[in-house]
Formats: sequence, structure tokens, C-alpha cells
Amino acid sequence: MTAISAAVIPAPHQPIELREFPEPVLEQDSALLRVEYSELCGTDLHLHHGRLAGVPYPLIPGHVTVGRIEKLRGAMRDVLGQPFAEGDRVTFLDVHRTCNACWYCLVAKASTRCPQRKVYGITYGAADGLCGGWSQKVYLKPGTRCLRLDGVAPELFMAGGCALPTALHAVERANLRLGETVLVLGSGPVGLSAVGFARLAGAGQVLCIGAPDERLRVATAMGADDVLNLSKLEFAARFQWVAERTAGRGADVTIEATGVPAAVVEAMRSTRDAGRVVVVGQYTDAGEVPFNPHADLNRKHLDVLGCWGSDFSHFYRGIEILKTAAGRQMWSAVPMQHFGLGQLNEALAELAAGRTIKALVVPET
Amino acid sequence: MTAISAAVIPAPHQPIELREFPEPVLEQDSALLRVEYSELCGTDLHLHHGRLAGVPYPLIPGHVTVGRIEKLRGAMRDVLGQPFAEGDRVTFLDVHRTCNACWYCLVAKASTRCPQRKVYGITYGAADGLCGGWSQKVYLKPGTRCLRLDGVAPELFMAGGCALPTALHAVERANLRLGETVLVLGSGPVGLSAVGFARLAGAGQVLCIGAPDERLRVATAMGADDVLNLSKLEFAARFQWVAERTAGRGADVTIEATGVPAAVVEAMRSTRDAGRVVVVGQYTDAGEVPFNPHADLNRKHLDVLGCWGSDFSHFYRGIEILKTAAGRQMWSAVPMQHFGLGQLNEALAELAAGRTIKALVVPET
Amino acid sequence: MTAISAAVIPAPHQPIELREFPEPVLEQDSALLRVEYSELCGTDLHLHHGRLAGVPYPLIPGHVTVGRIEKLRGAMRDVLGQPFAEGDRVTFLDVHRTCNACWYCLVAKASTRCPQRKVYGITYGAADGLCGGWSQKVYLKPGTRCLRLDGVAPELFMAGGCALPTALHAVERANLRLGETVLVLGSGPVGLSAVGFARLAGAGQVLCIGAPDERLRVATAMGADDVLNLSKLEFAARFQWVAERTAGRGADVTIEATGVPAAVVEAMRSTRDAGRVVVVGQYTDAGEVPFNPHADLNRKHLDVLGCWGSDFSHFYRGIEILKTAAGRQMWSAVPMQHFGLGQLNEALAELAAGRTIKALVVPET
Amino acid sequence: MTAISAAVIPAPHQPIELREFPEPVLEQDSALLRVEYSELCGTDLHLHHGRLAGVPYPLIPGHVTVGRIEKLRGAMRDVLGQPFAEGDRVTFLDVHRTCNACWYCLVAKASTRCPQRKVYGITYGAADGLCGGWSQKVYLKPGTRCLRLDGVAPELFMAGGCALPTALHAVERANLRLGETVLVLGSGPVGLSAVGFARLAGAGQVLCIGAPDERLRVATAMGADDVLNLSKLEFAARFQWVAERTAGRGADVTIEATGVPAAVVEAMRSTRDAGRVVVVGQYTDAGEVPFNPHADLNRKHLDVLGCWGSDFSHFYRGIEILKTAAGRQMWSAVPMQHFGLGQLNEALAELAAGRTIKALVVPET
Repeated sequence: MTAISAAVIPAPHQPIELREFPEPVLEQDSALLRVEYSELCGTDLHLHHGRLAGVPYPLIPGHVTVGRIEKLRGAMRDVLGQPFAEGDRVTFLDVHRTCNACWYCLVAKASTRCPQRKVYGITYGAADGLCGGWSQKVYLKPGTRCLRLDGVAPELFMAGGCALPTALHAVERANLRLGETVLVLGSGPVGLSAVGFARLAGAGQVLCIGAPDERLRVATAMGADDVLNLSKLEFAARFQWVAERTAGRGADVTIEATGVPAAVVEAMRSTRDAGRVVVVGQYTDAGEVPFNPHADLNRKHLDVLGCWGSDFSHFYRGIEILKTAAGRQMWSAVPMQHFGLGQLNEALAELAAGRTIKALVVPET
Repeated sequence: MTAISAAVIPAPHQPIELREFPEPVLEQDSALLRVEYSELCGTDLHLHHGRLAGVPYPLIPGHVTVGRIEKLRGAMRDVLGQPFAEGDRVTFLDVHRTCNACWYCLVAKASTRCPQRKVYGITYGAADGLCGGWSQKVYLKPGTRCLRLDGVAPELFMAGGCALPTALHAVERANLRLGETVLVLGSGPVGLSAVGFARLAGAGQVLCIGAPDERLRVATAMGADDVLNLSKLEFAARFQWVAERTAGRGADVTIEATGVPAAVVEAMRSTRDAGRVVVVGQYTDAGEVPFNPHADLNRKHLDVLGCWGSDFSHFYRGIEILKTAAGRQMWSAVPMQHFGLGQLNEALAELAAGRTIKALVVPET
Repeated sequence: MTAISAAVIPAPHQPIELREFPEPVLEQDSALLRVEYSELCGTDLHLHHGRLAGVPYPLIPGHVTVGRIEKLRGAMRDVLGQPFAEGDRVTFLDVHRTCNACWYCLVAKASTRCPQRKVYGITYGAADGLCGGWSQKVYLKPGTRCLRLDGVAPELFMAGGCALPTALHAVERANLRLGETVLVLGSGPVGLSAVGFARLAGAGQVLCIGAPDERLRVATAMGADDVLNLSKLEFAARFQWVAERTAGRGADVTIEATGVPAAVVEAMRSTRDAGRVVVVGQYTDAGEVPFNPHADLNRKHLDVLGCWGSDFSHFYRGIEILKTAAGRQMWSAVPMQHFGLGQLNEALAELAAGRTIKALVVPET
Repeated sequence: MTAISAAVIPAPHQPIELREFPEPVLEQDSALLRVEYSELCGTDLHLHHGRLAGVPYPLIPGHVTVGRIEKLRGAMRDVLGQPFAEGDRVTFLDVHRTCNACWYCLVAKASTRCPQRKVYGITYGAADGLCGGWSQKVYLKPGTRCLRLDGVAPELFMAGGCALPTALHAVERANLRLGETVLVLGSGPVGLSAVGFARLAGAGQVLCIGAPDERLRVATAMGADDVLNLSKLEFAARFQWVAERTAGRGADVTIEATGVPAAVVEAMRSTRDAGRVVVVGQYTDAGEVPFNPHADLNRKHLDVLGCWGSDFSHFYRGIEILKTAAGRQMWSAVPMQHFGLGQLNEALAELAAGRTIKALVVPET
């Protein structure tokens, strides 16, 4: 039994280290996954900067991962009841242990707010075992929700990555009607996937405001009709741009995917009266922002909808979308850079500098 | 043809004056209403202080009114197609001329945001005719939506007044589920009616935070299980009070009906994760307030829903509710003070001082 | 360790027998409940007649039960995470093992259609252990969802019984708006609870068509404004009765709770255009019925909504409703007859003859 | 002032005749449209066979029409408030006079069930004026809702025709979620447009069952992943085909667009538990069909949704969709045959024989 290498954030702000872990003893109905690809995304940058509460450092990051089942003890089944076998290529929902037993799961039916919820690569630490994808192998605990990747290339799935279910959830919350105009604020992975899903969900027009130009070109490839680089403009000019494309009204739906508090207020102001705003980009606490409850919310008769996390349905249906011709074409447009386990400090730096859109972790490189 | 007396706000901050108007010449399919009761509410205070934009002073206020049809030219019909006759006791929807021809009416189906919308007693001025209820008579223009008050005492209808459709609209937006806990912030007329409708819509528990104690006693009579006087407490203590009644979670639904910007943020913080907040109290611009988009909205997976105005359906169904035993009992609990047309400066002062909850204007006093 | 007596349906159409069972060995995180009350309802009549598929006779019926925890091994917790203790008075959701792992649970979020779903007293047979309430004791398997009955008298809870969550689910599906007219077809337990919930959910008017008069008197006590005995009338006369109360339109919402196929078509015909019909009474296969897709459905722009089973949220919120003054008053109106374990053949006969509305099984009688 | 030629159905089953009409005197705010294209669709076949109630023969059919404004008296405006001018190319909503004053319009907000509703080419007869598109000119009465066809070729708009808003309405009722499987029953114009909108609204998979093969080829071109010719198969085999593509469950959403009563029941049986069925094809009364309320509806926890007509929002947003690249491509796939005013008996025969999918009426041919 050989040791398993994994990349670890020892503590906030400390360099990532390669560490070796023993192969875990499998519990009943669990498995060991040999990682083909994992992801390095903005959340990992937040984790490296210690911006998320309740993270049990040291941590093996990597919350979206694809690989093959190397060992299986007992039975694991997909949602159709079909058993998995060693050798199967799978991915799995990073969210684990939503309990189906608490008030949030059973009464509110809001499993993304279940207090027992644990997330691979984020709230499971290295002390919990091989629970992150920046590793040669990942331990799939009993109850992990796996999904076969039949008919979807693993690279295509990773092009969506964690943004895929997140953005699908956001677009679903928007309750889009055929022919409406959707404005996406932000052109990071979630914003780009939101552009794709808005297009796929029947928008008549998809607008995207973000930066830099390279990402906006991806937004265009994923279905945006028009894009605007925000870096050179004030809000008034940005609103003017939206207004010109919406008969002066603002968008029917705005999806905020930026991480900047002021963007939430900009989303409200960029949306037409009686429209909908989905706020999905405020993943970490970046402070307060002033807004005007009369003019920005009440008089506008606006729906402002927070959107937290995702559940298995978003994950499953996101992959169904990748099986369609349009979905395949859209997410193929996302450029990806590959990094080995030993290159992840560099990868974080690239991401922080905005020089990479999607960094893939490839342990076998 | 005798002159008609009406009370007029000549301009913001100027004392109300009694003025005389000639009896209008009726257009085809219009009517003249002899007023039995009209209303003096918080909106009229705003009007007197000039806090609403686009008001064409001088103004005859009074947007909710009951009376009898004194003269009718041509035909006016109710929604069942039944013609009205002289002598019928009716009320009418203060909102007029939502056009059923613009983008907001026809595509967005958001008639409360129709740009052509005009409101009796607010955006129709004295120059438009007898278009406010603080008058012996009101001119019912062609197309005014009238409703018979059969089976509902006019005093009971006035106890609801303009708050009735507004609060019904707010509770409807909340999409309440049977057995949920509703928190109402504010104990003015809209807050009190929201308490009643939340109870009627199947809340398991209705909480109300407001002031002064006299209004909270009315809240209790209208169905609140528990009330809290906000005047002596900080937010932390108020939240503690809500938390104790909701297993620490906050309310399932919070309805903001206060007019104070900070109350909107308090509403968000007082609501459980994945709950709903309806903002109905920010009728005038009282400035900005800071909030935290991460902690107050996104991570909470909250729905924050602005609620503007009301349409005929809220008006109609509000009156249907007054016909039920429970509705009759609830709104009978609202204390009312009567004022003649010559006493309205005094009435405004009473209202401003919080000494009256519901001031009725009785022209024939 | 003394033997435990339970009443058993050996096979369809055979008389109920008292049998003795050994006390079960408790698995980890399971419990033994000493039964105070269980229920005998229409489902049990169906079970006795063999009308339900997939029932593993011999069977201990009784799917809704209240009692005290007599023995507890390991930990069982309520939805707030509070541990239960021996001596606690609890009830439990009859539905067990909805798996939270299959396509219906995770993707469709339709747990009442989960193929792994098992129901105490219906699809668990005597071979599965003490899994029905017609017994001195019930075995609460690991994962059973229990709920404390604090603040609700057990007799009141039983007055609702299995009809409580079922009817709440049906009324919730109806998406009732404040002031609408609800027509309930059927005055059995589900129909009566639907009358109560429709009233509580804000109906302006609740109508009930059923039989016999005794049950209709209960419907009135539970909130029906008007009731009609169907036994003496043809459909045309029944529709006329509804039409007279709805300006000729039919009800806004009709809830079918009869078990008779023709009633589903009557529900469609008794509902106004663009209204909603909830079908909750077709629990067993009673054959086909003809309808006219043009006139009964498409031209009417109707929503016809099947409603199957219930989940924990309906159970939980139903009990929240029983804690309110109005809920307590309504379900107190349901007359109940008590039967010991040895009297259940007689109880079935009473129910079949329509001489009892709600039969309680009281093992300690 | 020259005479205007129009094609008229004198009475059911009688040959279409060309008749001459005087040019109408324009009322204030009305217009005269010179017709470029009108439509001959299945509804016209029904009209010719007298299958619709309340049709005031003699009739100028043609309910969807494009042309140029030849004369305008007073002002007509689009939904943005922009005035139309002579020479503008427009289309108009065939539905006229939904009153915005009755219970259905104002309380139920179900304008497609407004009793005052009149439809050009169907319920306006020749006695009402030039109110059908099978004419050189159409009289646009005051209040007709016109829409500029900027950016959409008139031929493309006619390829959608009346099926465009109808199918959009049906797909909107289905409340489709991203990645779901949609089954369309029927491959007439409504079925084909439903295929297109289901694809555009984010279906993961679109299936279509219809006939003949030529239409199914169009379905494929409009976005169907798989099609089945129903003519050679029994229901069991058809269901088997659906089941194989849906893991045995049936479709998430089925849209019935056939006109055959039995297809409604087939739709229910072809849909997975807790799925949705939209019934849009039962435009005329083709008699009754038996179904099983237990097995087909209640146990399946199904939503069965009738869908009648369409309103301006469907019309407007359908045209927004035609402006998108995907929309343009889809509806370009619909083959059209042109017929002059004198060839319409022949055109009806072609349509009745299934030899044409979409027949355009071109008065200037």
C-alpha cells in the first residue's frame, strides 16, 4: 500500500505543500477514487486567504473532481439504483451529509442551509481524510452522491466545474420567461456559466458586464449577445448601455456573480420594475453597501433573491445540459490551464492575477 | 346646481383649506358620488409634507372613499357586468387609467408599474376635477372600477381603507404556507392589516413589533399571537424576542410595513434562512441604509420582495374577506376617529402625533 | 419480557385477529413506543378488502399513532436536533425510508413517489415487526421521523389523524388566494380536514358537498359556509347549487376527496375557468371514467393536480396548525369513537356502514 | 375608392367565395392594413367544417396576418408608446376586446377566458367588417394591439403564425426546468413550435411523436432529438419508445398538441410521476375519452394543465424569440406553400389531406 500525495493549504496565507497520506481503510459502502481532474477556482483563493468561516485547516482543497473508481467496498449506487463498479468514471457532489433529518431539510426543504452539510475540499479538512480533489486519490465516504460521466467528456465537465450547478441554480431561481433579457454582472466562471444557462433557458437577449476582454470573448462564445468591459466606465454609463438595449427599462432579470457588494445594488438598479435579481456572487463577506429601500426595491416591485450553493438536482441537470449539442458547444469555449499537484502555488497566483479563467488540477501530470 | 365643498392641500406644508367647486358636467359613462366616508392616512401626511414626487397641487386628498351614486350618465358596470344605478352604495379603486396597452400592463403584467397609472387623491389634482374623497362629492371618471358594498358595512370597509388591498398584496407576495410564522414589522394600518391577513392565510404564529402599546393591542385583537413594543429595545433584543419564538431561526416570513429604511435590513436579519421578506412600507424616499449582501441575503438564500401598490384583484378579494366572519371580527377591532371636512388640519396633527390609528373623513358631519 | 398483543389482518377479507408478538430487540438508534391511540380509517377498510397493491399480509394496520417512548436504544432526535427520552409523548411519520438517494428524491424532489418508500401499517407487514399502530407497542425503526406532541392534546392530534397531512398537502397544492371560494367534494376525514385547511388558508367561502348529514354538520363546525347533501341530487342540481354561490362561474378551487372516479369529472365541471382542481381522493383503483378533454380541461384552461401522500413538512405544519386557537377549535369538532384491540372487526363494520367518522384504536382499553 | 376583395366562408361546408367589400370608413384611432401574408391553418379547417361554436358566418377567415399600414386615422401606438405611421410593416394580435373590466380580466387575471373576447377571422364575421386576413385589406379597429415587425422577416413570422404564441403559452405553462425531457405529442404547427420552444427553454431532450415523416423531419430540424411516427404503432410500443429514453420513467413534461381526445390520456401515461402535462391540442369538441383517476392522475401526483389561447405577452415574446439566432434558424425550417385569394378551396383541401404543413395566403399573388 503506497502513500498518496495531496496538496495541502496548511493554514491561511501559507504556501501550499505536498503531503503524503496513507491509503484509507474503506468503510462499508465507500470507495476510493483515482483523480483525473480537479479544479482550482475562486473559492480556493478565498480559502487560501482565510476568507471563509469554519474551515478546518490544514485542508486538501478541490471540491469538484472527476476520476475513476479504484476500489469499492460494499455497494454504491447511482440515482437510478445502478451499482457502480471499479473502473467506472464518475464525478460526485461535493456536498455531503445534508441530513434529510433536520428542520431545514425536512420542513423548509432548503438543504443548502442544512447545518449538518459538509463540503469536500472546503469544510472537510485533511484530518477528515482524503476529502479534497487536489490529491492523487479521494475517499468517497458512504453516502456520497456519485454520478456516471457517460457521454460527457471529463474535460467538458471540468470546464463547467463548480460553477455549473451554482449558475444553473441561479438561473433557475430567476424564473426566466421565453424572450426576456438577462443581464449577467460578472464574467468569472459563475458569470460565464450563467450566460450559457440564460441563453439555454430561452432568453431573448443575454448581456454581460465584466472584465477583462478575454473573459468577455468567452461570454460571447457562450451565448452573450453583447458584452461590456466594466473597467473603463462608471455606473451611469453602464446603466445607459443596458437601457439602450432594453427600451430604457433595464433587464428583465439580472444575475449578480461578482463578489463585490456594490454590484448587488447595481443589479437592482439595472433591472426593470417588477423584474428579478438573483444574487449568487456574494460568497464571502466583503462588507456592507448602502442601498435605497424605497427607490431600489419597494417602488420597483422587485424580487431580489439570494442563491446559496446547489443541490444534487442542479448537479444532475447541469450534466444533462452538457449532453446536449448546445451545451457541449458552449462549455467547450471555456479555456483551461492544466497544473500538476506541485504547481498549485503558481496556479493560485495566476488565478489571483486574472490570467487564468479555469485552472485544472491534474494529479498525474 | 349648488357648489360642492372639498378640503384642499394648496401646496406642501400649507394649511388645508375648504374650497368650493362647481358640480362637474358628467362625461358619457361617468358618475357623481356623494361621499359618506373618506380616509385620512399616512399617505396624506406625506402629501402634506410634500414627500411624494409628481403630485399636482393643489390637491383634494382622499384615495379610499365610500358613498352613494348620486348621478349617473350612461352606464357603469361592475365586474359581473351588472349595471350600477343611482342610489347604489359603492366604493371604487383609487387607481385609474392603468392602460392595458403598455409594455408593463401587457408584457410584464405589472399594472402597478404602468406609467399611465393615476391615483385619485394623490396624482389627480384639483385641476383634474373632484378626484379626491375629502369632498362632498367625487367625480367617477369613465373607466373607474366601482364595486358594490353589499353585505359589508361601510364603516368596516373604511376600517381597512387603503391598507386593506396593500396588505393583502403584501401577504400574497409572501407565499405563506400553512403553519408558518409571520413577523410583521410596524403597527400602522398596513402592518395591522398584514397581521390580519397573515392570520387568515394560515400562519401558525403571527408576531408583531411596533408601537405604541395601543396599536399593539389592536394587533392582538386582529390576530397577533405576540407583540413587542420596539421603542424600548435595541435590534439585538428584538431579534432575541423573535428567536425565542422560532427555535432560534427567525420568522419564516417577515413583512416590513414601517417606512423606516433600517427596518428593511432588520426584516432580513429577523427572517430564517431560505425565508421570505416582503417590503411594503417604503412608500416614500427616506434615504439609504447599509446592508451586507453576503450575510443578509446571499448566504441566507433569502427572497426579498418589493411590493408596490395594489390592483383590482386585491381590492376585490379584500372585500370578499371582509364578508367572512373572521374578517369582520378582525377589522372591527380598528378604532376610528371621525373628522368633518373643516377639521382636517386637526386630524393631520392627531395622526402625526400618533394619537389616532385611522381617521375617517365624514363630509356630512 | 412479556408478549405484545396486536390486531392483525391475516389476509384480505379475513376477520381481524389478536396475535401476540415478542418484544423486539432494539437496533441502534431505535425505540419502542407504547401506543396510546392509533387510528382506523378508510385506508384500513381498503386494506381489509385487499384493494391496495403490494401489501404484505398478514398486516398490523394503524398508520397514525400516538404514544410514549418506552425504551430507547442509542439516540433519536427531533428536527431541531433535540434528543428524545424515554417517557416522551410522540407521534411519528408513517412514511419511512424515502431514501434521499434516488432520482425521485434528489432530482424530481418528489419524495412521495420514492420507490423505496415504506409505510407503517400499510406496506410494512407483520413480518417486518411491530410496524402498525393496532398494537400495544410499535417498533420505531432507525430513521423514523418522530415529533413531540407538546402543546397538542393527543386526542386532538388523532382527530386529524392521517387526514391532517393529506388534506394540508391538498390545500397547499391548490395555491389558494385570499378570498377565493373553495369547494370540497367529500365529507370523510380528508374532506373535513380540507374544509378546515381551506378556511384557515384564507378562503372567502368554503362549500362542501357530501353525506350523510351528520358529517356535513361536522363540515359546518370545521368552517364550511354552506353544505349540500349529495345523496338526493343529480349533478346538474349540485352544479346549480355551486353556481348560485359563485356568480354562475363555479368554484375557484375544488378539492376532490371522495374515492369515486366520477367525482373527478364533477370537480372539473364545478370549477370556474382558469381555476384549480386538486384530486386527492382516488387512493385506490375504482376504474375509469369518461371526460371531455375539450370542454372539461383545455377550453377551461384548468389546472388539474393529482396529490399523492404527504411528507414530513405536511405532518409538521399540520401539527403547528393544531397549536393555534382556530385549529384547536376546528378539529375538536370531529366526533370520535373508541375501540379496543379486540373490537376492531366491529369498528371496521361501523366505518363501512358510515356510522362512525373517526374510529380511534385504544390498546389499553 | 375601389372595392376590396376578400375570401369568405359563406356557411359551414360551403365553398369559399371571393367577395368584394367597400373600403371602410375609419373610426378615430383605427387603421387599414394592406395584407402581405395571412395564414390558413387547422382552425380554418375547423371553421369550414363548422366545428367551432359561436362563429358568425359568413366569415372572412385569417387570424394571423402581416402587412403595411395603408391608412391611419388618429393615433395607434405600440406598447412602448411609439406611434405607428402609414407605411409601417406590422402584425397584430388577433384577440381583440378582452375588456380589462370583467371578473376574468381583473380578478382571475385570465384574459383568455374574458367573455368579451373577440378574435379576428374567427368570432368577428364579415358583418363586422374586414376582420379577417384572407383579404386584400384588414380593418384594424380601435384598440387593436399592433406590433412592428422590425428585425423579423414577415415570412419567418408567418412560419410561426398562430402556433407561435399558442405553443409558447403551452411551454410556459409547463414550467420546464433546465435539462428535463419534453415529449411533444403531435407534429402539426403547434406541436412543431412546441418542439422549438421546449428546446429553447432548456430541455435536455426533446422527443416528438407524430406523423407523417415529412413533418417529423421538420420536428428534427426544429430541435427534436428523436421522433417517432405514430401511425405504425400501438400505445404500448409508443410508451416503450419514451421509456427507453427516460430510464423507464416517462417524460418530465408532455405537451399534447393533437386534437385527439385519446392523446390526452396518452400524455398522462407517458409522463413520469410528479411531472407535468399541458393540454393545448383540444381546440374543438371531439368527444369524451375514459381515463383512470387513480392510476393516471392521483397516484402519479401529476399536474395536468389546460392551456387556452394566448395573450399579448406570448405574442410579443414569441416575436422576441424570432429575433434570436436560434429562433430564426428553427422557424426557417417550416416549409410553406403560397396560395392566392382565389386558391383557398384548394389550399383547404391540401391541408385536410396533410399535404401542406403551413399554407400562406398571399392576396397580391
